[in-house]
Order: sequence, then C-alpha cells, then structure tokens
Amino acid sequence: MYRYKITFAYDGTNFSGFQIQPNKRTVEQTLKNAVNKIAKNPEPPLSVIGSGRTDAGVHALNQVAHFDCPYKLGNDSMRKALNSLLPLDIIVKKAELVSPDFHARFNAHSKHYRYRVDQSDFVNPFKRNYTAHFKYPVDVAKMQKAAQDLVGEHDFTSFVASGSQALSNVRTIYQADVHRDEANNEIVFDFVGNGFLYNQVRIMVAFLLEIGSNQRPVDDVIRVLAAKDRNQARMTAPASGLYLVSVDYGDQNNKTIDESESIK
Amino acid sequence: MYRYKITFAYDGTNFSGFQIQPNKRTVEQTLKNAVNKIAKNPEPPLSVIGSGRTDAGVHALNQVAHFDCPYKLGNDSMRKALNSLLPLDIIVKKAELVSPDFHARFNAHSKHYRYRVDQSDFVNPFKRNYTAHFKYPVDVAKMQKAAQDLVGEHDFTSFVASGSQALSNVRTIYQADVHRDEANNEIVFDFVGNGFLYNQVRIMVAFLLEIGSNQRPVDDVIRVLAAKDRNQARMTAPASGLYLVSVDYGDQNNKTIDESESIK
Repeated sequence: MYRYKITFAYDGTNFSGFQIQPNKRTVEQTLKNAVNKIAKNPEPPLSVIGSGRTDAGVHALNQVAHFDCPYKLGNDSMRKALNSLLPLDIIVKKAELVSPDFHARFNAHSKHYRYRVDQSDFVNPFKRNYTAHFKYPVDVAKMQKAAQDLVGEHDFTSFVASGSQALSNVRTIYQADVHRDEANNEIVFDFVGNGFLYNQVRIMVAFLLEIGSNQRPVDDVIRVLAAKDRNQARMTAPASGLYLVSVDYGDQNNKTIDESESIK
Repeated sequence: MYRYKITFAYDGTNFSGFQIQPNKRTVEQTLKNAVNKIAKNPEPPLSVIGSGRTDAGVHALNQVAHFDCPYKLGNDSMRKALNSLLPLDIIVKKAELVSPDFHARFNAHSKHYRYRVDQSDFVNPFKRNYTAHFKYPVDVAKMQKAAQDLVGEHDFTSFVASGSQALSNVRTIYQADVHRDEANNEIVFDFVGNGFLYNQVRIMVAFLLEIGSNQRPVDDVIRVLAAKDRNQARMTAPASGLYLVSVDYGDQNNKTIDESESIK
C-alpha cells in the first residue's frame, strides 16, 4: 500500500460536515468514493482519515487527509485523478506520496482557523454562506486586546459546546488576531492552536463580538476562563463564517498566520 | 394604487432565472409572493415587472422592478417588509414610491453588465458559482482594444443566441472595458449599453477571450460584426460569471462604469 497525504479546499455550504453519516452528503464520504474508484473498489473499501472534523456549513482552505492506495501514482496524477472524480465544491490542491507512518490526525501539530464577519447594513446575498453577519459597530482594538487573553495554555471548558466528547478541555492557542478587512467590510478573526474543542472557535468569536460591542468588559476573557463554566459564554457564531485555513505538521514554517493561505 | 420602484440584488445560483416559469424557483415569482403578501393577497394577484430577464445562474447587484400596491408604506418600511419576507439570496436595497408612469422595463435607458473570469490554476470551490474559470494566459490589452470595436451602434446578429425573439438585433454599446483584477486573480469585463440581446454579453466575453488567448486576430470583431452570422462567434461563456450591475433610468449620472456599484 502507498500512503498519500492530500491538501484540499471545500465550500462547506452543501455538505453535512466532514464526518461520514448515513444518507448525508459529507466531505469524508465524497473523498472516500473518489479514492475507492481510483483504487478500483477494493473490499473492504479504503478509508480516508482527515486531520479532524468540520461541522455542517464550515469551510476549509487547506484541510489535510491521508489514505492508503494499492496503486502507486505520481503526485500530480493522483491530484488530477481525484479532481476528475470530485464535485466542484471540493478541490484537491496537492497530493503527496508520504511515509506510511504519516497520520493526518495524530501528526497534526497545530491548526489555523479563520472567522469572517460581514459588517454590511443588510445580509449580502453573495456572502450569506461565507460570512456571519453582524452590522453593529465593533471596537476592533478592544477585541484584539481581549483575544490576547485567550493565547496560551488554558482549560477552555467555558468555551466548549455541550456535545463535546473531549477527555480534557486543556488546549494551547499560539496566536490570536482580530483585524478589520476594509476592502471587504469584514472583521477577520484568526486563531492558531494545537487543537480546538467542539465549537470553540465559534464560541470565542461570539464572545469577542460581545466585548467589541460593549456587552462585556474587555477583561472578561480572564474571568470566564477561570470560571470553567459553559454557561458563561452563551453565544455561538454561525458555521458559515468559519474556515479551516491550514493544518501544520511541523515540516513547514506555517505555524504563524499567513494571509497568502487564503483563497477567497 | 401606489407604484413602487425597487432596487435589489440576488445570487442567481439557486434561481431558474428571473422570469416566472411553472414549478420553478424564479426571482420574479419570489418577489411576487412577497409583494402579494404585503398587499394582503388581492385577487387577481399583483404583478412585479422587472427591467428585463436574467438567465438561470446569472446574478444581479442592482436589478430594478416596479409593482403597484393598494397600500401606501414609507420607502424604508416597504424595503424592510419585503426583506422580512424574502429568502436570503435576494435583498432589496432600496424601495421608492414613484410616479404611476414609471416603468421598470420601458423607461430603462441603459444597463451595465459585468463578467468575472477567474484565472486560478484550478476551479476555486468558493468561486465556482460566481465566476467563469479560464486558466490560460490572456492578453488583457488586446482584449481591451478589441472590445472598443464593439462600442457604438451595431447589428449584433453575430453575437446573439439562436433562441432570441428580438425584432431587431441593432443595439448600442456605450462603454466596454476589460481589466485585470490583480487582488482576486480575475479578468473583469464591463459593458454599458442601451440593451443587450439574448446571451449577447456571454457570447461577446467568450469571443474576447478567444482574442486574448490568440485564437483569433485582434481585429476579428469588425469582420464578425459585418458578417451578421451567429455561426461566426461559436462560444458562450457560462452564466455563473455574469452580473447585472445596474439599470439606468436617466435620472442619475450612473451611465458610466462605477466600481462602487459592486457588492462582492
């Protein structure tokens, strides 16, 4: 068997998330179908292992997965073969033959998530699936300041959705950045961390927006982290604004936030 | 009855075009349902008259229509009432009580269409419904030069789709512009004219792309216009790249191409 690492983008709008579910259109199932077709439908079927799940409606710019194929193809041939079988809302940007001990989930060092908030007066029909909409004025400097309190190793119990099955809620955020994208009239949130809990980014974004619109004091992150109580952070920002930008495996210097990773 | 002019945007992806068709989701039907709900479902139902049709998958940034309502609402109340009833892929940007002799189709002086061509190496999943994809190098200066041969009053028989029911194929193009949008890696075509024939913009764009990629000489527009033969311009660019940017009624100085009209 030959192990391939693939890096791919998807528009999450028409997927019921990443993970396979019966009778649902998922990213994992769609990739699995293509991989098995290339492998001439072996029994049992081949699996595709992603770096992690994304929820329904969440997008990815450079998600990573691996699979084992009984046939050896050149990297570019594998990429093209997959793209010829995939629908237009997934694109494989890179396929690489890797060592059999590469594992898309276990080897991931860090992930970079981005969240886009559109500030138009009304919901822009062209952005409805690609941003969250929040028309009220927000203080970006205040959100940027508060976001720094999320950086570091913390117990994020206050920022995890109730459905989480994680054994520990301790995670490390390496970098957090909030800035205004003037050209697109958006607020952009970037987080790089060693892993994120269920809905954690969406809950952190909603919390920072409450700070930015003066519904919470700027130092409220510190108090709420210490409380370790999910009821403290009440809101979850919608899936449509969230992008998995990249997954870092320690082999590249991409742990920091790089605007060029974005394909819009 | 009170006549209202509305200016609205729509994402054409999930509409079977503007015009009402049985058992299809169309822009006209969707607007008509909202207007009739506001008017408390009169019999016979009220009609909504658009400035013109757009095909399935074609978008609009500032399409215009009118309708008559038995109730008088403030402009802003009318806009909000409509938006509260419309799905998120249509947004009414402006509603105006106008003179009963205003007619969205007959009073239109000119229309501005834009066409976006994405030049990424592969089909970007986030742009698949919002651009055409053409990855080959193109000479923008050559296309801009050729586009000027389309400006003026011409018989556009060579640039009309066979399904057209127009009595005359003579139209006037006031302005044509082709430029590269570096930030988005796109080629953008803008056309302002007194009216456009069925598929005319999409055929002109495909023709200019043939010139830009050296499949036709730069002066081929002149020859093909003179031929008055649809078989000369063989290709039609896909619907996904086309936007109705604005409709001019002579009451505003917006006949020229204005980037600020774009909402992306």
